[in-house]
Amino acid sequence: MTIQEIREYLLRFSDSVELIGSGDGEISGPAKIEDATLGQVSFIANEKYIRFLATTEASLVIVHRSVSVDEYAGKRSFLKVSDPYTAFVFLLKIFAPPRVITAPGIAATAVIGNGTSIAEGVSVGEFAVIGDNCTIGRNTVIGSHTVLLNNVSLGEEVLLFPRVTIYDGIVLHNRVVVHSGSVIGADGFGFAPQSNGSYVKIPQMGVVEIGDDVEIGANSTIDRATMGSTVIGRGVKIDNLVQIAHNCTIGDDTVIAAQAGISGSVVVGRQCLIGGQAGFAGHLELADRIQVAAKTGISKSFLQPGTVLRGTPAQPMRDQLKLEAMMRNLGAMKEKLDLLEADLKERKARE
Amino acid sequence: MTIQEIREYLLRFSDSVELIGSGDGEISGPAKIEDATLGQVSFIANEKYIRFLATTEASLVIVHRSVSVDEYAGKRSFLKVSDPYTAFVFLLKIFAPPRVITAPGIAATAVIGNGTSIAEGVSVGEFAVIGDNCTIGRNTVIGSHTVLLNNVSLGEEVLLFPRVTIYDGIVLHNRVVVHSGSVIGADGFGFAPQSNGSYVKIPQMGVVEIGDDVEIGANSTIDRATMGSTVIGRGVKIDNLVQIAHNCTIGDDTVIAAQAGISGSVVVGRQCLIGGQAGFAGHLELADRIQVAAKTGISKSFLQPGTVLRGTPAQPMRDQLKLEAMMRNLGAMKEKLDLLEADLKERKARE
Amino acid sequence: MTIQEIREYLLRFSDSVELIGSGDGEISGPAKIEDATLGQVSFIANEKYIRFLATTEASLVIVHRSVSVDEYAGKRSFLKVSDPYTAFVFLLKIFAPPRVITAPGIAATAVIGNGTSIAEGVSVGEFAVIGDNCTIGRNTVIGSHTVLLNNVSLGEEVLLFPRVTIYDGIVLHNRVVVHSGSVIGADGFGFAPQSNGSYVKIPQMGVVEIGDDVEIGANSTIDRATMGSTVIGRGVKIDNLVQIAHNCTIGDDTVIAAQAGISGSVVVGRQCLIGGQAGFAGHLELADRIQVAAKTGISKSFLQPGTVLRGTPAQPMRDQLKLEAMMRNLGAMKEKLDLLEADLKERKARE
Repeated sequence: MTIQEIREYLLRFSDSVELIGSGDGEISGPAKIEDATLGQVSFIANEKYIRFLATTEASLVIVHRSVSVDEYAGKRSFLKVSDPYTAFVFLLKIFAPPRVITAPGIAATAVIGNGTSIAEGVSVGEFAVIGDNCTIGRNTVIGSHTVLLNNVSLGEEVLLFPRVTIYDGIVLHNRVVVHSGSVIGADGFGFAPQSNGSYVKIPQMGVVEIGDDVEIGANSTIDRATMGSTVIGRGVKIDNLVQIAHNCTIGDDTVIAAQAGISGSVVVGRQCLIGGQAGFAGHLELADRIQVAAKTGISKSFLQPGTVLRGTPAQPMRDQLKLEAMMRNLGAMKEKLDLLEADLKERKARE
Repeated sequence: MTIQEIREYLLRFSDSVELIGSGDGEISGPAKIEDATLGQVSFIANEKYIRFLATTEASLVIVHRSVSVDEYAGKRSFLKVSDPYTAFVFLLKIFAPPRVITAPGIAATAVIGNGTSIAEGVSVGEFAVIGDNCTIGRNTVIGSHTVLLNNVSLGEEVLLFPRVTIYDGIVLHNRVVVHSGSVIGADGFGFAPQSNGSYVKIPQMGVVEIGDDVEIGANSTIDRATMGSTVIGRGVKIDNLVQIAHNCTIGDDTVIAAQAGISGSVVVGRQCLIGGQAGFAGHLELADRIQVAAKTGISKSFLQPGTVLRGTPAQPMRDQLKLEAMMRNLGAMKEKLDLLEADLKERKARE
Repeated sequence: MTIQEIREYLLRFSDSVELIGSGDGEISGPAKIEDATLGQVSFIANEKYIRFLATTEASLVIVHRSVSVDEYAGKRSFLKVSDPYTAFVFLLKIFAPPRVITAPGIAATAVIGNGTSIAEGVSVGEFAVIGDNCTIGRNTVIGSHTVLLNNVSLGEEVLLFPRVTIYDGIVLHNRVVVHSGSVIGADGFGFAPQSNGSYVKIPQMGVVEIGDDVEIGANSTIDRATMGSTVIGRGVKIDNLVQIAHNCTIGDDTVIAAQAGISGSVVVGRQCLIGGQAGFAGHLELADRIQVAAKTGISKSFLQPGTVLRGTPAQPMRDQLKLEAMMRNLGAMKEKLDLLEADLKERKARE
């Protein structure tokens, strides 16, 4: 791909793409700025990488329009854009080799239940098992060893990697991606305590509904509702080993990092950012655009949109940082207190 | 099902079930109180839902015997019981449609090893692999893609969802349920450090033994013992993504919430409640009926039955709440300290 | 095996192995000191088990050379070594029955892609799926239901338990062990935020490279790099349910306990010990031989080799223990402060 072609491609996503340098040459692929060699394209989106401008061997570097590159323009070419990171991501999409999850078409070893309808363009991998009365939308890819129980509905262009389980009755809308090992729709963790100390299982009769463009990482679990639905909103991104319990509702475009756990019946707003290993008590609510730091333990609702939370129990970031500063200051407090005490003691002795 | 039939059914589990209202009408199924429509049954077990008494469209509501419902008895029927939550759970069991994990019988694609005995009524799903010399009890269901290595013993009416792994020699007693993705009996994490900084693997020669009526969620891991057994007591309930290390013993009817992790050789008593993301150091012991709050980090034994634990490092709830209150009060303490200091300074200046 | 044979075997690993007692008799297998019976061998490596010297029924006990056992030498035999724990581990290796993960050879039901080369001595289990252009080294064992996408490279004597997923392009060197349910090479969690609140997926074009003698537990996840490689060094041991994000580098012989989570682009040194449920923010670095206590939350780099870390946010153990002591002392501080305040008040009143 020529540098000119890259410039034209990026103009589709960015209002201005300014070329600095000759613009000559072919680009064979992308690389990190510190690793790039002749013929590769890289980017700088973070101040601390600007030092590589002098030393990189990349033939093309995408930079922010505010970065001064003129002194290097004799050696390589630059494209100045308003968001170099996103521009580079779109470039990656071009250079990414097509990914083969399973061969096209339906593998001879796949088992498909009665009453299941499969639209055109669908691929089903080796040993995949699809239950009865499922609906599989156009161009959806089901990896090998993935299991769908009965009455599952998959939208169009869904991508299930190998070894995913979708329980009975679960609904995935269009372009949902689920990585290997994740389990969607296992029973919610509901047991009624009995007077003798044992438990009676509460039948988990609800389902899970997952919106368009959701991506779910590896080995995560999203439980079905006791009644009604566990709802994952459009565009939500879920990392690996995340637990989402029965009857949760996760708002559109919320991002949940690895090993976070959300207890039953929690409502999370839209465009929230949940850090890794964060945990939520049950039956609480977060407003839109709330940010939860990694490892935070949330024990009550926070209804002010955009709040940043940290600590266990969680509180707004400013309060928590103040608390942490106060804790770091405890030694000094103790010293001051001991001095005052000694002072008073001495005073008393003098009296 | 008529309301009268429901009343008679509930009398099997409750000493008194009082009908308020006409008791006429057919009930088609259960629903949450805020979602219920004509012909449905719901329940109220929590004070904060009592406001829905006025607005719900449910035809039948199960309530606690202390709740006053007379003013609504013209519009719908009520059943008063001593434990509306449990009553409703038993009702759910009636309305739950029969669940099909796999077709009855042994799938033609399943692979069954030499010397394995399979009792009557067993179902084995597509591509399931059962090793040599296993014993499968009556009416047990093994989902598709589930793998049993050699010498596994399953009791009666065990239910293994699809994509479960049971390692060699593991014993599951009657009515154990294991959800998709869980791994029972992988090697304990034992490595002997060598003087050059590397490790020699310690062979993990023990097994796991799981008692009657245990339920294990999705993607959890229970490791085999180094020698002897990792023991999960009768009636234990384990949520998703839980880690139980080698040589642990979990007492009967203990409940362990999602993402909790229990290190090697821990002994947990009976009827304990372990919160989500709680963590245990190794080789410690908890007495019976201990409650561990979510995210607690337990670093030593607690031998007083019924203790409630919280914090990292964990301490009894009362001490931890006092500590947390003290921490919230740090700002006020600092202010007071500064005032005293200023006061003394001024005093000195005056002297 | 006779006691004399055991002594000779142990001399291969230890410079001196002193026999106390008759040395007569056959040893049938190993057992824990408190469970051992006649004909079994056990060991004592920890002071608190020395009390079992008097009561154990073991015929042979491995002890440290400093332990005095002469008074029991009439009843049983002892072997004195410098490291009884490691000596016992090597003994376990002898007594461990050979483990059968899958039958020798390539199962008829396995599916193997085009251009894949399989060296001699390889076993492939039932329904395993191996993609195109893979390379499988000598004597490697691939469990049933394990899936390799295209272009995977496995070294010699690799052991993949059943139900493992290895994504496209991943490289495992010699003698790597991966337990059931783990997923190696799923996409890194990278999404570029857009101005409308949604995200564009960043193609994850890199791979994972796993060094010789690495062991990975059950249901862990190691993500592929965005570009370049996620690198797991030689001899690293990873427990169950661990998350290692894209572009991490883990140094040789580092040990990572269950449910720990390491965010993107973290560099961990060699011979580190990472406790269970520890969490790392992204883009930070740990020096060699750093020890991280369980549940620690690491938010910045620590570059001093051998530092012991604890707390959230993490700090060197000594500082954290001082902080925790100070917190336990808060009640006393408050009391002292209140006394001083009362004293001054009274003083004022007197003036």
